[in-house]
Amino acid sequence: MLKSKLQVQLLNIKQNIFIISLIIFCFHLSAQEHPSLVLTKKGVENIRKHLGTIPIFDETLAEVKKEVDIEIKTGIHVPTPKDMAGGYTHDRHKKNWFTLQKAGVLYQLLEDEKYANYVHNVLKEYAEMYPKLALHPQTRSYARGKIFWQCLNDANWLVYVSQAYDCIYEYLSKEERNHLEENLFIPYAKFLSEESPQFFNRIHNHSTWGNVAVGMIGLVMNNKKLINKALYGLKNDNIDLNLKDNDGGFIKSKGQSTGFLANLNEPFSPDGYYTEGPYYQRYAMYPFMIFAEALQNTKPELKIFEHKEGVLIKSVYALLNLTDNDGEFFPLNDGQKGMSYYSRELVSAVDIAYHFGGNDTSLLSIAKLQNRVQLDDSGLAIALGIQQQKTTPFIKKSVELRDGADGSEGAIGILRSVDQEFGLVMKYSAQGLSHGHYDKLSFSYYHNGTEIFQDYGLARFVNIEQKNGGGYLKENKTWAKQTIAHNTIVQDEASHFNGKYEIGSKHHSEKYLFDTSNPKLQIVSAKENNAYPGTKLHRTMLILDDEGFENPLLIDVMHFNSDSIHQFDLPFYYHGQIINTNIKYDNYDNLAKLGTKNGYQHLWLEGKKVIQNDKTIQSTWLSNNIFHTLSTLTKNQDEFLFARIGANDPKFNLRRDPAFILRKPKVENGAFISAIETHGSYNAVTEIANNTYSNIQEIKKIPNNNKNYLAWSITTKKNKLHTFILCVSTTQDSKKHIINLQGKNYQWSGPFYHNKTNKF
Amino acid sequence: MLKSKLQVQLLNIKQNIFIISLIIFCFHLSAQEHPSLVLTKKGVENIRKHLGTIPIFDETLAEVKKEVDIEIKTGIHVPTPKDMAGGYTHDRHKKNWFTLQKAGVLYQLLEDEKYANYVHNVLKEYAEMYPKLALHPQTRSYARGKIFWQCLNDANWLVYVSQAYDCIYEYLSKEERNHLEENLFIPYAKFLSEESPQFFNRIHNHSTWGNVAVGMIGLVMNNKKLINKALYGLKNDNIDLNLKDNDGGFIKSKGQSTGFLANLNEPFSPDGYYTEGPYYQRYAMYPFMIFAEALQNTKPELKIFEHKEGVLIKSVYALLNLTDNDGEFFPLNDGQKGMSYYSRELVSAVDIAYHFGGNDTSLLSIAKLQNRVQLDDSGLAIALGIQQQKTTPFIKKSVELRDGADGSEGAIGILRSVDQEFGLVMKYSAQGLSHGHYDKLSFSYYHNGTEIFQDYGLARFVNIEQKNGGGYLKENKTWAKQTIAHNTIVQDEASHFNGKYEIGSKHHSEKYLFDTSNPKLQIVSAKENNAYPGTKLHRTMLILDDEGFENPLLIDVMHFNSDSIHQFDLPFYYHGQIINTNIKYDNYDNLAKLGTKNGYQHLWLEGKKVIQNDKTIQSTWLSNNIFHTLSTLTKNQDEFLFARIGANDPKFNLRRDPAFILRKPKVENGAFISAIETHGSYNAVTEIANNTYSNIQEIKKIPNNNKNYLAWSITTKKNKLHTFILCVSTTQDSKKHIINLQGKNYQWSGPFYHNKTNKF
Repeated sequence: MLKSKLQVQLLNIKQNIFIISLIIFCFHLSAQEHPSLVLTKKGVENIRKHLGTIPIFDETLAEVKKEVDIEIKTGIHVPTPKDMAGGYTHDRHKKNWFTLQKAGVLYQLLEDEKYANYVHNVLKEYAEMYPKLALHPQTRSYARGKIFWQCLNDANWLVYVSQAYDCIYEYLSKEERNHLEENLFIPYAKFLSEESPQFFNRIHNHSTWGNVAVGMIGLVMNNKKLINKALYGLKNDNIDLNLKDNDGGFIKSKGQSTGFLANLNEPFSPDGYYTEGPYYQRYAMYPFMIFAEALQNTKPELKIFEHKEGVLIKSVYALLNLTDNDGEFFPLNDGQKGMSYYSRELVSAVDIAYHFGGNDTSLLSIAKLQNRVQLDDSGLAIALGIQQQKTTPFIKKSVELRDGADGSEGAIGILRSVDQEFGLVMKYSAQGLSHGHYDKLSFSYYHNGTEIFQDYGLARFVNIEQKNGGGYLKENKTWAKQTIAHNTIVQDEASHFNGKYEIGSKHHSEKYLFDTSNPKLQIVSAKENNAYPGTKLHRTMLILDDEGFENPLLIDVMHFNSDSIHQFDLPFYYHGQIINTNIKYDNYDNLAKLGTKNGYQHLWLEGKKVIQNDKTIQSTWLSNNIFHTLSTLTKNQDEFLFARIGANDPKFNLRRDPAFILRKPKVENGAFISAIETHGSYNAVTEIANNTYSNIQEIKKIPNNNKNYLAWSITTKKNKLHTFILCVSTTQDSKKHIINLQGKNYQWSGPFYHNKTNKF
Repeated sequence: MLKSKLQVQLLNIKQNIFIISLIIFCFHLSAQEHPSLVLTKKGVENIRKHLGTIPIFDETLAEVKKEVDIEIKTGIHVPTPKDMAGGYTHDRHKKNWFTLQKAGVLYQLLEDEKYANYVHNVLKEYAEMYPKLALHPQTRSYARGKIFWQCLNDANWLVYVSQAYDCIYEYLSKEERNHLEENLFIPYAKFLSEESPQFFNRIHNHSTWGNVAVGMIGLVMNNKKLINKALYGLKNDNIDLNLKDNDGGFIKSKGQSTGFLANLNEPFSPDGYYTEGPYYQRYAMYPFMIFAEALQNTKPELKIFEHKEGVLIKSVYALLNLTDNDGEFFPLNDGQKGMSYYSRELVSAVDIAYHFGGNDTSLLSIAKLQNRVQLDDSGLAIALGIQQQKTTPFIKKSVELRDGADGSEGAIGILRSVDQEFGLVMKYSAQGLSHGHYDKLSFSYYHNGTEIFQDYGLARFVNIEQKNGGGYLKENKTWAKQTIAHNTIVQDEASHFNGKYEIGSKHHSEKYLFDTSNPKLQIVSAKENNAYPGTKLHRTMLILDDEGFENPLLIDVMHFNSDSIHQFDLPFYYHGQIINTNIKYDNYDNLAKLGTKNGYQHLWLEGKKVIQNDKTIQSTWLSNNIFHTLSTLTKNQDEFLFARIGANDPKFNLRRDPAFILRKPKVENGAFISAIETHGSYNAVTEIANNTYSNIQEIKKIPNNNKNYLAWSITTKKNKLHTFILCVSTTQDSKKHIINLQGKNYQWSGPFYHNKTNKF
């Protein structure tokens, strides 16, 4: 009996153990492993196996280890938030998020508990501080944070720190986890979402960061509520539809979908162009791609990389195409110059696009230049690809990147010369949300990594505290966003849409023609009918690769047609020093401002010529030891102005860069027709100057009564006559045209005619 | 009889042959071999033996061959002279001289008659044209040439072409040689000497070229008369002593020795500094060194490299020390920026200095950077040295280069920081002949290859035809030479010596102290008592390497003492963009010129602050992603001006560079005491800004009634107090000083005291 009782008890115990085991097993099935977001358990094993044999990965890991080891030695620093960007507490917390994320990775890859312990200790400090924090004392932001002056940076922190938490999740006890989640992560996510709806519930890169922050920590904790908020936004937010952010953009429009998926659907065009422009696209790229990776790893059923026909992967290619030959982004809209595909965001993006986007070996060449990888499966894939010598060149071709959620809101047209040395960027897109500039049909032009004609970019010194705490300067609005700050047409010294965001964001330019089928004569052409009511603008730019010129010739035809008389200005912002012009212009004993508002108040007038007779004006300048000549057709009473940025700039916030401004003071319609040559070179060591003169003799408009056509000619000094005719009413390829110009018949198919003959 | 008659005849013939042979033999003994100037018969054999095993030589040879082969294929071009520099005929004849010299070398080294034949054919064309030439049609030069607009270029031609002739001398028949010599070389040398005495018979780099041209062709033809003219000048020249050249310099002073040796004795100081400055020293270096090499090869008894205690070799070292970390020459006096030790002249100079100056292996590291050699014995020596891995680093240390034939006319003081990253160049030399600038006690300051405070250099675009035919622009006189264009003191808006060459060239500054014995506190100090009669100037500059600062600190004390009241200005020409200042300054709706003459008419006044109370004014700027701060002690009623170059510049000949100008409007004496920090960095990719603030709290002058001392202090933000005392009356090392300042006794030996304490 005793025995049997014992046996029964034993049986019961065994049964209980089985049930407990079953419960534990079931729990494990439903609970997720960690890490699982960016690093995965399987991925970590795979990486450990390859360590020491994959140079680019090994080097990145060694660098990260060195950096984190140094940082750990300095101790733990979690100061009470106080400063603006550039100040100590800001920079310190920013450094913390990077260090935590990296330390988490090191723990996983190197299996050294020192790193897990460090992450845990720092997080405990934050969990100690966070519940006591009110809003950040700096009041400048429309959405103040707690750790930083704006929620945006708080969101950044959580995107990175979630990864750190994921990495040490299994290292912590349940109690330790509960402590962190209750005191830090849950209230943190709540603050960023419900408590900051004007930040969280928009279509904006800020919100993307917010969504992803909440989503990432939600994925770590497997918190479905948070994950759903991240993906689909807040249902109720009570946002005032008249509310604007610090950049002057509306927070929200009526009936707007929000959340991560909406932020993926709307600002991205089907070509992967992000409407705010490449600088902010780059900035948003990290949360987009890292969250997509985390979703793919944890919720593969979402097929996030296939969303909207694979727009995330396309967006990486779009970004790579939006760079000059040094990898620097074209500073369209608000963009700080110098930002490039060497940024950490692009390292992630390229690695993830390679790994989850079909192992395109041309991406390996970019990764090779970056010379760093993300320390996860995607970085491993890159490292293995390079190690196995699969790298192929990434060739930047001419490409049009449509704007608008469905691709219908204009585009960015990029023409690249056959040899890829010259790049033209023409902008005929939508407004670009609150970071947009009023520069319809503007362009910039590059020779290798050097600007020939610049886009000014933004007026800001990001993270330099003395310059307005690193934030936007007031000159960003009074200068950088204004039309006259760009290489495009200005009517009556007013900006497009009168510089009003409400109007500008309702419109976009219309693509007319983008044809690169003939690499030796590429063309981009677009129309803008809303920038100035009653005035139609049509710009056509061509890159002609002709043996008669040392380098490709850029041709620019800016046509305008208004219902009343106006002044039209067309600036060209060049760099360097004027070598020669073929006009005798006035210059001044005192410099006056070119105007009083809309950016004109920031320009000094350095010289001016009122043109007598119709004439081809030429100006040659030297920049970076290369010569350039602008040749432009002018009419009697046109003006050629020499201007320089810097007026009304009491804090020296603006660069003193020069411009030529073509002016037609009182006209209803007409065209600015110009050609830009890049020629010759100067060597300060040999003191040899080559090909210092323009090869253009004359530009002429060919008289023509048929408003469906625009015709002009360029004669070279070697007596070659180039004739150009553009049909401005239809771009049909099959359409046959016959017109008579000056007694001569021209006959061709398609929208454009070009011919070269000897001039007699 | 018949037989014996024949035998006698035979005997006679044999005797005749013997005599003829003897004559020929004797002739050969007395006549010289060819080539013998730069290449030598023995050297050529030696080179041929090594070809294929000496990479740097082989590569240079291959490049030269490629270049000459391409050139030969284009045919022979000897156009009638017509154009200014930058024009076709000028550039063509210039190209010819280089090609001929190289083709001559190729003939010798490759033994391919094609090259000799080419040289001969081109020379025949010149011999055909030359006798018909009048003076060049361009009348701008004080010494017009025949092939070029100025004799200087004609001389260049002959220096190079003499070498070509030397190389093909033995390839030609006597008749062919006679033809060339009678029609080309003899009249050419006569034109450059007797017929152009104002060019030939001076102390000037122009004359050096003239002397060497005549000397080189004299050596080839073994023409003693020409050689003597070259070495010792013309005995009679009838030059008017009031005559000036195009740069405003006197042609000749009374009793002046002339010729090559005089040009070696006078403009070179015992330290190898050439009084015109490094840009022209570089230019003159080629004729100096190449003729020295030719003399050493043909007249070793002259011991030319030992002349004036080896000044030629010393001058090569002086030049190498007069460069920034990119090898670019400091643009002292007239100097075009960008010229560097990569120039062909320095390739020759370094090779020759190595070969004839004792095989200093540190020169090999410069040659390695140049990556080219002279194709002769000296280049072979370099190539062998490099191949044998003898290269050692060339370390640029702090060095003082005295000016004046005997070293008594001031100096250029160069301080370099311990890590060699920072370089200060202070000028307290003589006027520098006609290329001199009026900038006593001026300085420039470098960080690696980048200017922190610039010397403007010249106002000229050498060889760019559109800019005044490539010649000096009028702004060189109205701006670049003026005192206000430099970082030095200006009294009453007038240039030193009133900008008068006649006065300036009578004076030089006086070295006061150059002490680099403590590499952590290096000092240069000099006085100028003649620039403004009645005013004594004394500038002291220090580089302090202190752990309290991220980088070495530059301290500048510009002391002045006049017998009457004046306005004193001290400009600092910086680069980049202002980040912050600690003053609230005025700025303007219209820009006015800072003054009306002496260079002031070229400056726009962008901002101005009249100082209330004594104060340390600070201005921080960002240049090339590095921060810099100027801290300067100002007194009540002092002014701080923001200026920019570019006024009164109708042809855009000047760069729009900015300056701070410190002004003391009405004082008899005082001191500008300033400190310049280089700190932090900005990275446009990571957007991280480091150490963006100055570490200086305050600069103070320490009150002191003893006129023998100047005392000041610098307090850092970390409360360190640096005290400096300079004895301004004696530099004796052994001299003991005891003074009481503000109740505290200071006691030390030597001219200078510095101490660091904690500030309480």
